[in-house]
Amino acid sequence: MERKDRKTLIGAGVARPDAIDKVRGEARFADDIVFPGMLHAAVVRSPHPHARVLKIDVGEAESCPDVRAVATAQDIPGANMVHVIFDDQPALASDVVRYVGEPVAIVAALTRRAATEAARRVRVDYEELPVVDHPEKALEEVSPVIVADPDAAESGNLFDKMVLRKGDTEAAFSQADIVVEGTYETGYQEHAYLEPQGAVAVPEGLGGMAVYASAQCPFYVQNAVARVLDLPLSKVRIIQSSTGGAFGGKEDVPSLICSLAAIAATKVRRPVKLILDRAEDILTTSKRHPSIVRYRTAAKTDGTVLGIDVDVILNAGAYQTLSSAVLWRSLCTAAGPYRVPHVKVDARSVATNTVPNGAFRGFGSPQVIFPHESQMDLLAEKLGIDRVEIRRRNLLRSGDVTSTDQPVVDSVGALETLEMAADMTKWSDRLASISAFNASQSEHRRGLGIASVIYGVGLGGKAPYLDKAGASMKLEADGSVTLAVGTVEMGQGLTTAMIQIAAEVLGVPVGRVQMSPVDTSRVPDSGPTVASRGTMMSGLAVLNAAKKLRERIEAVAERIEVPLDEIPDRMADLAQAMWRENEDLAVEGWAKTEPVDWDPKTGRGNVYAVYAYATHVAEVEVDVRTGEACIVDFNAVHDSGTILNRTLATGQVQGGVAQGVGFALMEEIPQRDGRLMVNGFTTYRIPTIQDVADGAHVGFVEAPYAAGPFGAKGIGEVPLMASHAAVARAVAHAVGAEPGAYPLSPERVRGLLKAV
Amino acid sequence: MERKDRKTLIGAGVARPDAIDKVRGEARFADDIVFPGMLHAAVVRSPHPHARVLKIDVGEAESCPDVRAVATAQDIPGANMVHVIFDDQPALASDVVRYVGEPVAIVAALTRRAATEAARRVRVDYEELPVVDHPEKALEEVSPVIVADPDAAESGNLFDKMVLRKGDTEAAFSQADIVVEGTYETGYQEHAYLEPQGAVAVPEGLGGMAVYASAQCPFYVQNAVARVLDLPLSKVRIIQSSTGGAFGGKEDVPSLICSLAAIAATKVRRPVKLILDRAEDILTTSKRHPSIVRYRTAAKTDGTVLGIDVDVILNAGAYQTLSSAVLWRSLCTAAGPYRVPHVKVDARSVATNTVPNGAFRGFGSPQVIFPHESQMDLLAEKLGIDRVEIRRRNLLRSGDVTSTDQPVVDSVGALETLEMAADMTKWSDRLASISAFNASQSEHRRGLGIASVIYGVGLGGKAPYLDKAGASMKLEADGSVTLAVGTVEMGQGLTTAMIQIAAEVLGVPVGRVQMSPVDTSRVPDSGPTVASRGTMMSGLAVLNAAKKLRERIEAVAERIEVPLDEIPDRMADLAQAMWRENEDLAVEGWAKTEPVDWDPKTGRGNVYAVYAYATHVAEVEVDVRTGEACIVDFNAVHDSGTILNRTLATGQVQGGVAQGVGFALMEEIPQRDGRLMVNGFTTYRIPTIQDVADGAHVGFVEAPYAAGPFGAKGIGEVPLMASHAAVARAVAHAVGAEPGAYPLSPERVRGLLKAV
Repeated sequence: MERKDRKTLIGAGVARPDAIDKVRGEARFADDIVFPGMLHAAVVRSPHPHARVLKIDVGEAESCPDVRAVATAQDIPGANMVHVIFDDQPALASDVVRYVGEPVAIVAALTRRAATEAARRVRVDYEELPVVDHPEKALEEVSPVIVADPDAAESGNLFDKMVLRKGDTEAAFSQADIVVEGTYETGYQEHAYLEPQGAVAVPEGLGGMAVYASAQCPFYVQNAVARVLDLPLSKVRIIQSSTGGAFGGKEDVPSLICSLAAIAATKVRRPVKLILDRAEDILTTSKRHPSIVRYRTAAKTDGTVLGIDVDVILNAGAYQTLSSAVLWRSLCTAAGPYRVPHVKVDARSVATNTVPNGAFRGFGSPQVIFPHESQMDLLAEKLGIDRVEIRRRNLLRSGDVTSTDQPVVDSVGALETLEMAADMTKWSDRLASISAFNASQSEHRRGLGIASVIYGVGLGGKAPYLDKAGASMKLEADGSVTLAVGTVEMGQGLTTAMIQIAAEVLGVPVGRVQMSPVDTSRVPDSGPTVASRGTMMSGLAVLNAAKKLRERIEAVAERIEVPLDEIPDRMADLAQAMWRENEDLAVEGWAKTEPVDWDPKTGRGNVYAVYAYATHVAEVEVDVRTGEACIVDFNAVHDSGTILNRTLATGQVQGGVAQGVGFALMEEIPQRDGRLMVNGFTTYRIPTIQDVADGAHVGFVEAPYAAGPFGAKGIGEVPLMASHAAVARAVAHAVGAEPGAYPLSPERVRGLLKAV
Repeated sequence: MERKDRKTLIGAGVARPDAIDKVRGEARFADDIVFPGMLHAAVVRSPHPHARVLKIDVGEAESCPDVRAVATAQDIPGANMVHVIFDDQPALASDVVRYVGEPVAIVAALTRRAATEAARRVRVDYEELPVVDHPEKALEEVSPVIVADPDAAESGNLFDKMVLRKGDTEAAFSQADIVVEGTYETGYQEHAYLEPQGAVAVPEGLGGMAVYASAQCPFYVQNAVARVLDLPLSKVRIIQSSTGGAFGGKEDVPSLICSLAAIAATKVRRPVKLILDRAEDILTTSKRHPSIVRYRTAAKTDGTVLGIDVDVILNAGAYQTLSSAVLWRSLCTAAGPYRVPHVKVDARSVATNTVPNGAFRGFGSPQVIFPHESQMDLLAEKLGIDRVEIRRRNLLRSGDVTSTDQPVVDSVGALETLEMAADMTKWSDRLASISAFNASQSEHRRGLGIASVIYGVGLGGKAPYLDKAGASMKLEADGSVTLAVGTVEMGQGLTTAMIQIAAEVLGVPVGRVQMSPVDTSRVPDSGPTVASRGTMMSGLAVLNAAKKLRERIEAVAERIEVPLDEIPDRMADLAQAMWRENEDLAVEGWAKTEPVDWDPKTGRGNVYAVYAYATHVAEVEVDVRTGEACIVDFNAVHDSGTILNRTLATGQVQGGVAQGVGFALMEEIPQRDGRLMVNGFTTYRIPTIQDVADGAHVGFVEAPYAAGPFGAKGIGEVPLMASHAAVARAVAHAVGAEPGAYPLSPERVRGLLKAV
């Protein structure tokens, strides 16, 4: 399949074909979808963080003229259960509500306004119950137990407890030359996707239900909807509508949104659209888990880390949703990209009467990265070692083992990211110029922060059954190519990558490859579009499909005497010849990762098939008077294996950096008694282009991954993971104090400055 | 795959799952489809049968307030050509119009009314040209040549001329004991589908165009639309909407309808719906080809047929569309289901300034069946042989060769259909009771007619590259099954048959198999849904897919020690095990027919992979005073191989019989100067349930076809083919005269009675 004569498409900055539709306003997002007879839904939600539902009276709402139905729990044909990992969350609460905004009923009416107005007329009598609003309080013995299903929880309000034990941590700490420690808290982060959650459920032929959804994980939704409707999986198909951002926020939540729409659609036997408004979306859908991490590091005087002792608490909210998976990644990522021989991590996710938290870019890793990078800098400071140098001494190299005792051999570019980032920054010179700047005046202080991260690509050893993907491909009689996969485009560029891979293998122009919107009925369960796995896994499936098709094409080329190097130019003839001979023009490709494993007793195992790495360096300037920190310069270097599309990968990094800047510096949701105190982007501030300087300078260390498509690993989450920590460490450097909590808002930075 | 413990689904009267949607009014037909921003289209059509287009002025139409665009030929991005077989028909006429109703422009507006009104304001200046309205006139040397592309025609107005030569016909006729001859004319037949032609063209992501269409042949449409839009095939997908009947009328015509909608949608970059109203549909879309057949038969005194000499003329209308394929079936079917050693057939399709005729159930065969069955009866009468007996002596048996010199060996049930039909009718007793009835009074005369037919299933030797089909199938993690094929449900029951086959092989309940609407992007070109090939070809593809999947399931069953006979009950466990092990749950199935061939020089060859057979017996009663004929009793016996679903096959026969009764007795479209003189179902009368007595008594001779799915051949067209001839021959028997033309309307029957 070598084509020395042709320019390869791999690495090329192929323009994303879906951009045109989006720029023109022609892409159809969930709220753009219309079906004949379609009704609009509004959700009746709990105003209380914890209360018993005594009575639901839908009479007045049902009698509103434009209302067609009000559905409550009793209208659910199947199980009143939104299946994610554990089955503890009802689609519509019927006995107890456990967070503010929990759905109790859904109204379907001719217009959205009528539905919303009628929703207000659904009378629900509640008896308020004691509220548990903080995970540490929730863990106290005296705390009321608020979990829905005690059997599905570890004990009391403790949803999940996981451990990682490697080596002899006690000995390591007792023998260490130095021990540093700290407590690190992070708060909520809102995904702030441009498009709020939305779905249109459409009863289909043969007793089926289709749901058009703004979603990352159509197969999760398929399972959830089949469950509430009591339908076989084959009778439920999820079609992804153009998705205006997700960032993890559309991983588990659409299972609830789509279930609600489908319940209503089943009751009225008509299409039902449910679109959340911004306030509703922010207040009632998942966020990044707030965390409290206690972290101790033992090291030698040369900076070599001997051991870590980490305690992670995540605030899961009222239901489990994805918390156990998020927690697991905290556990596996706690040691960072470093060789750590002795490891002890305890990780707990805890129930509170708050909105269930879920997936968010980084998925439990930012909560431990802020700590591990803070600890590395603390060590460096205390030992008088340069921060680049201490990382250089500890970073994983090929042949090392990770904290879970997993050997890493292939594609280990951690150190290269560090070196390139240091080079790009001119690290030592920059430190000197910052010193000079800080000495020259007193109103601003600059600081330089560095952060290195490791990221296990894909779902790994806790859910190995999800690490697979399918592709369906066919050659058309004119040599163009039709392609379908099961992971989604949500802005990250998956469509472009898939088309590039197919075009590269088959030797057709990218403009002749058409990719279908994701529809769960077209390809087998391809797992979720999460964990930076889209390009790697679906890319492999597409690669495998394309290779099969290519073999058939080459066989025909041989038969009709077309030289291999003329295949691209003769593709139409070849396809036509195959078509005329009634050859099968369809192939399906399948991919699964190399085996992974995890032992829950020890927390050890070959937990991920492969890892991505990154090192970011941020320079910030703090206004000493206001406490405001802003980005002066940013360098981001990634090892995500071969980069399939440099333009889009760079875009991923730029976006991730911005989201990390927001997480570190400004994004905050106060919570009081289980109530979130924001309702839109005037009260929840996210970075603008002005907050990220000119954007990051981006470098790629392409340590090719033999088992990835053309050597690619994943990239999506990694930029966020590294960037917030680089920013936080830059602020620490600037102010000369150790931050213990995010965000480093002006108030908090002023507090740090005062403490110095 | 034997399952002695389980009731087989094959042959079972599994209820059609799509019936529920249709009965409830929930099936979405083309006009039920709505897209956001969708416009409605109306077509500006030629009022002349033949005219030069001097000028098209769209100014006034375009300035109507609700109009968004008026498209003419110059707006077509690609070729102004509706590709069917030959490229002679423009999508929008720009220089010459050749039939009344030919499209000249298309208007897209906010409402259908606005579009229709604006269409009237498109000013087209025409210069009328001489009109050729009859095929025999068209063939005269003095006739103006009216074809669009003389190169694509044989000569002058002769589109196509085909011959079949076998043996020495001249010798056969000179040595025959008896020669009979006749001329037989048939007229137009309108498909009278419940749902008129319609399509919605929707610009899609990545530069694609989707067209939702009421269509039999989505892949034809895909090709046509790609051509007019100048898009690769991968960028055009056709999704079949629920189709309210087709009968051949939605074989080629949707290529024009969808092209028009797609041209308008491309111009406005919005979805465009085009639905024909009933009058527009009847007047401007294809009909059954009117025919003139001159038929001579040479035989021995024992009734053995020695030879035939047949001349077929079909009135093709203004463009070729499918005429050459229709003509080819006339050619191959001209000898009927009989052993005829010496065969001479000349078949011509001829251009006239009338609506292009196309596919209609039977596809060129009814036009020669009326003759061959009339001739058989004539022979019987002249030789004093019973009509059953003379057929018994001549019908093809296994080991015989057809008129095209094709040996038929497997699945030759012709004779069995005759015997069963005679038995069901109690042929001799019935003849006696009819004689008694006719002798008892003079106001009514009863008659008994019999007709035997042969039908080559599939597309055969003239287009072997179309006889293929694909299926895409996947097992869901709960053991339910998702299925897609490329041939369509149009009322005949294909969906049910496909689901039955999949369920049978996999051992799952039919209710757990879901079939997707046909979408050309999901499966490879599976050929058209015509020629009674749907169940046979797509069924084979489904069978092949299911067998592949079954193999994987059995392998897992072995691994986890589930006995084979417990697979059906344990399917959910097995599927779950496969899912957890990341096994590929998708398969694709592919089917193609056994090789066929045809020599255009001689007309001989193994022209079809397999044949279906039928014998129908009709009893009619003629009111001597009015000439009205009505059905008293009807027996229909078919050999279509194994019957997969007796209920649906019986329904197919009942419907085909009714349509044949209409063709023989009442359906008529007068044509004057190229203008059709009907405009709806008040002027074009089709049979009601009252016209077909209690419906036909149906019998099946199931001569299994080894290469068909579970032994199935095709059935769709055959009942129509036999029924009209049985009715016509019954009328002949009743009135004691030979009909020379259809329909046998009261006027024509009175003429026959007078002639006696």
